[in-house]
Amino acid sequence: MNREALSKISYGVYIICTGDEKYGNGYISNTVFQVTSSPAQFGTCCNKDNYSAGLIEKYGYFTVSVLHQNTDSEVYGRFGYKSGRDLDKFDGMTIKYGLSGTPIVLNDSVAYLELKVVQKIDVGTHWLFIGELVDAQLIDESLEPITYEYYRMVKKGLSPKNAPTYIDKTVEEPVAKIVENKDFKRYECMDCGYVYDESIEPIKFADLPDDWKCPICGAGKNEFLPF
Amino acid sequence: MNREALSKISYGVYIICTGDEKYGNGYISNTVFQVTSSPAQFGTCCNKDNYSAGLIEKYGYFTVSVLHQNTDSEVYGRFGYKSGRDLDKFDGMTIKYGLSGTPIVLNDSVAYLELKVVQKIDVGTHWLFIGELVDAQLIDESLEPITYEYYRMVKKGLSPKNAPTYIDKTVEEPVAKIVENKDFKRYECMDCGYVYDESIEPIKFADLPDDWKCPICGAGKNEFLPF
Repeated sequence: MNREALSKISYGVYIICTGDEKYGNGYISNTVFQVTSSPAQFGTCCNKDNYSAGLIEKYGYFTVSVLHQNTDSEVYGRFGYKSGRDLDKFDGMTIKYGLSGTPIVLNDSVAYLELKVVQKIDVGTHWLFIGELVDAQLIDESLEPITYEYYRMVKKGLSPKNAPTYIDKTVEEPVAKIVENKDFKRYECMDCGYVYDESIEPIKFADLPDDWKCPICGAGKNEFLPF
Repeated sequence: MNREALSKISYGVYIICTGDEKYGNGYISNTVFQVTSSPAQFGTCCNKDNYSAGLIEKYGYFTVSVLHQNTDSEVYGRFGYKSGRDLDKFDGMTIKYGLSGTPIVLNDSVAYLELKVVQKIDVGTHWLFIGELVDAQLIDESLEPITYEYYRMVKKGLSPKNAPTYIDKTVEEPVAKIVENKDFKRYECMDCGYVYDESIEPIKFADLPDDWKCPICGAGKNEFLPF
């Protein structure tokens, strides 16, 4: 078994929203896929522990905003690594409400889909929701949709712990720990897990300006711990 | 509703195989996605009418070969637009048999997954099979996995009729028919639907060499009809 093979499966990166104007929430997902064309139905997976899972069950609708290649890292931080139980993720964002009243994030989005849940399938740690298409619109056709590969390789983004594609690094990379060079320091973002590695960066972490932010989730310097 | 928005969802392109050494078959799919990480489970959709759907049900295993950007067009023709009821698709291909005895196409492949079916979900025209990972290996790490967008835009490939992402052109593009320029002729591949449009190609269809082949599925010139 070589789990690197799993990273060769292609995905996009999306914000899934659910709820209504009062209790709306959204989260980052790379698992959105069409299951039939007639009628047009799409599936998405959501960790059962996520705040949004309960909201999708309750409201019976979800929307999918397709993110583009230069999406603001603060959007990944807010929707990918924080819980809607702790903050209003829509605060300051441009939100539209779909035909069903479900919120849709327009920031950094190429297009959106709006779906009505027709099946909820138990696949273990996650629910697999199947939705029938209610509406679909382009937002900015000039933008290029981001692929998960691009997010991983160019933006150096990581899957959050509740994602279907999460890789447990404590299990996966023992070799990297053995050959670690003690001359260099590494700093890990406590919000998203991004690692600032001084051995490959042009300047020391301490010399970064005070307003420097995590390139993945927008967290400040004080959210990083050395290891 | 703007169905162009649906094309902004990202996919890869894969050969799904099932069966055994005697009754094996494979088909092209762009719908493969991870649903959970612990245990690692993947989903795929298969039209209920496909020969392979019955084989996956019977054998309970399937494999996924991840195709790369420069995959031979003959591979798309054989696995995407022909039925295993009519020919042995593995004839002349490099096939490996996985831990479960399920065939795996190695030609033009970056990596493969081998999965044991744990759920079969009825989503209308298609079965949605959920498989638990049995094995995963890299085949040629130097190759770049093809995305469905690349296949659509660069290779000018189309979804076959039984695919979840199939677009019925008789419904979708009435405008294109109205503005058609009668000075030009178009020729459609009867195998895969690819259109050779003389208005955008450097030479007339009749002047193409006799051994010219459809760039999508490898069919000969005599498989094309003008319209």
